[in-house]
Amino acid sequence: MRSGPRGGDAIDAAVSERDAVGFVAVSRGSDPTSRYLTGREFDCDLAFVRVDGETHLRVPSTVEPPSLSVASVRVDDRPPGKAAAAVLAEHGAPEGTVLAPRTIPHDAALHLESAGYDLASTAAVEAARAVKDAAERDAIEAAQRAATRGVGRAAAILAAATGEEATDGDGGDGDSGREDDGGDGDDDRPALRWDGAPLSTERLRRQVNATLAAEGVDAAGATAVRAGTRGDGNEPVELRPGEPIVVAVGPRGPTGYRGALARTFVVDPDGGWERRAHVACDAARKVSLVEADPGDDAGFLGSELRAETAAFGFSMADEVTRDVGGGIGIAAREVPPLDGDRELVAGNVLRVRAAVTHPDHGRVELTDVLVVGEDGPRLLGDAPTGLDPSRW
Amino acid sequence: MRSGPRGGDAIDAAVSERDAVGFVAVSRGSDPTSRYLTGREFDCDLAFVRVDGETHLRVPSTVEPPSLSVASVRVDDRPPGKAAAAVLAEHGAPEGTVLAPRTIPHDAALHLESAGYDLASTAAVEAARAVKDAAERDAIEAAQRAATRGVGRAAAILAAATGEEATDGDGGDGDSGREDDGGDGDDDRPALRWDGAPLSTERLRRQVNATLAAEGVDAAGATAVRAGTRGDGNEPVELRPGEPIVVAVGPRGPTGYRGALARTFVVDPDGGWERRAHVACDAARKVSLVEADPGDDAGFLGSELRAETAAFGFSMADEVTRDVGGGIGIAAREVPPLDGDRELVAGNVLRVRAAVTHPDHGRVELTDVLVVGEDGPRLLGDAPTGLDPSRW
Repeated sequence: MRSGPRGGDAIDAAVSERDAVGFVAVSRGSDPTSRYLTGREFDCDLAFVRVDGETHLRVPSTVEPPSLSVASVRVDDRPPGKAAAAVLAEHGAPEGTVLAPRTIPHDAALHLESAGYDLASTAAVEAARAVKDAAERDAIEAAQRAATRGVGRAAAILAAATGEEATDGDGGDGDSGREDDGGDGDDDRPALRWDGAPLSTERLRRQVNATLAAEGVDAAGATAVRAGTRGDGNEPVELRPGEPIVVAVGPRGPTGYRGALARTFVVDPDGGWERRAHVACDAARKVSLVEADPGDDAGFLGSELRAETAAFGFSMADEVTRDVGGGIGIAAREVPPLDGDRELVAGNVLRVRAAVTHPDHGRVELTDVLVVGEDGPRLLGDAPTGLDPSRW
Repeated sequence: MRSGPRGGDAIDAAVSERDAVGFVAVSRGSDPTSRYLTGREFDCDLAFVRVDGETHLRVPSTVEPPSLSVASVRVDDRPPGKAAAAVLAEHGAPEGTVLAPRTIPHDAALHLESAGYDLASTAAVEAARAVKDAAERDAIEAAQRAATRGVGRAAAILAAATGEEATDGDGGDGDSGREDDGGDGDDDRPALRWDGAPLSTERLRRQVNATLAAEGVDAAGATAVRAGTRGDGNEPVELRPGEPIVVAVGPRGPTGYRGALARTFVVDPDGGWERRAHVACDAARKVSLVEADPGDDAGFLGSELRAETAAFGFSMADEVTRDVGGGIGIAAREVPPLDGDRELVAGNVLRVRAAVTHPDHGRVELTDVLVVGEDGPRLLGDAPTGLDPSRW
């Protein structure tokens, strides 16, 4: 990783172009913009001021001394907007236009305005964040490697799971080779067991998260295991053979950058729906690996993904996901979203999701991360895509 | 957990008292205020509108269908401030004063104002969040139990660690019983080994996080292992006998509520500083267990904690932490902070931290969570406090 904070050049260019005197961001220190601009995480309110080509941070006095070892950080217990105005005045900008993200807290905006500054919104930081440098791409790739291990752990458990030891007597037809039975038939099959106990979505999720932790990344509350049509991923349910099981992770690495990976598995498949949905998602996923070039329209890529999925006989309105992804970095969702009219540029890193949901059959999803390069897209990570967990 | 969202009554009371027509909050769905008000996590921008005693949510169309199964959630792809203004107008409030958190995004505030509303800030939600109901306290206590397991894992590893297998030849005096040697002497002792390999802050952190994951909670990026004077917790360093090792966790449970626990361990102690610092922190910690009563001043409790620590011969200005804690809930830092002039009330849940830092010796810290009850404070969890990891 580069050692200094990012975004300074982009901010200075915007300040100069807009004939402004400086730039102010105000946030909890842990929010993505602040983390990007400061290069670290502050666990407190923070005023970020860029004036005359230099960065100044103001934090409350309760911050621990180690956080203060960064140059240009000073304690100021006034509200962050007031502290920012004071920094501007002290550094040769007693009046004029100040740029800020449009989402700057309203109270901070009012403090700046009452100190005599005109406030104008800028998307310069958002735009800078959308184009990743080599160190940022490496950090995302590292998170994606850990994500692959996490999902791989789920695959290994599912490959070792069996439906044979259940004692409720209504099982035993697990190998009858039924074709698409409308989904209801899944309820007749005994729950999967692993390591001597029933296997639930929550048990699998904990195993995935333990693997992520051992890899040195944070699960970031983004790990979800969804089984068939039962539950929305919040309530634990037992896993059954024959139903699609979606394992999705979005870990955060030590420098804050995120990965994103989702795979769908079926143990002992007995239906046709999930195979058809999987073929559709896999085909749609491949579209992004061919079509994500600099200069392309991000929204068009998203439309293509959805259209390719729908082409396999799924309803665009009801079955194909609307959330096909977008930029990923310090935040799980960044610019550019894949549903707008922005142009892709080299350095964009995109989370790309192909997914189909059906009320009787459940969900099939494949999510990956790719880098838009000068020569086209490059997939990060090498996770297999198949439905069969034993072939991971 | 109660199933419905919280804060509605507090908002309605504030709206009535201020003669306002409604309340608006705008946020990323995952921020603590939004999570508190909606009772769930939305991974998208969100407009929360309370008008005429009812709650309305507006989300962008990219949100996945399961999120839309909550009553009163509708899709609106306009900027959240505009969507909120539309909801107010549709529900009998075409003009008047609208309450909002003071940190509402500036652009949303401007959208509301340009739609004809007067904006007034309210701390009603912040205040409501500071008083936890029984289900919230239970959720924090459950997170705290997981936190105890996580720190206990670190204690078990440190208890099993040895400094004996190092081969660099300059060790071997680990049992020489040196008294306080100024801290520099720690560098002469061989690094700790565990399970056949050197034990670093990062290796220990991963083990703690794997335990948290297995307990079903998210590490939430809050796990830190700090060793002696080396590193600030960001760069991995090898652990050594004789130095204070701080293990701090702040896990997030499945409903979003946080725990907070820090303990300090020394393997094979050889100095007096850490024992003295530990006695000071333990005494200060006990102050909070006696003095945190409804009606007490939160800032005074914080001052008492710091004064009690300093009474053992530590510098208030340089050695005793300023960050003695405050409210904890969905966020790691909530109202009331322990450095203001707010009154404690029954139902407050407080993170309480006693810590001493010295440039030559390192850091000793004890952090706990307690509930302020009608009859006084109650500690959540039963983690031992001692320096000796083998006595956990």
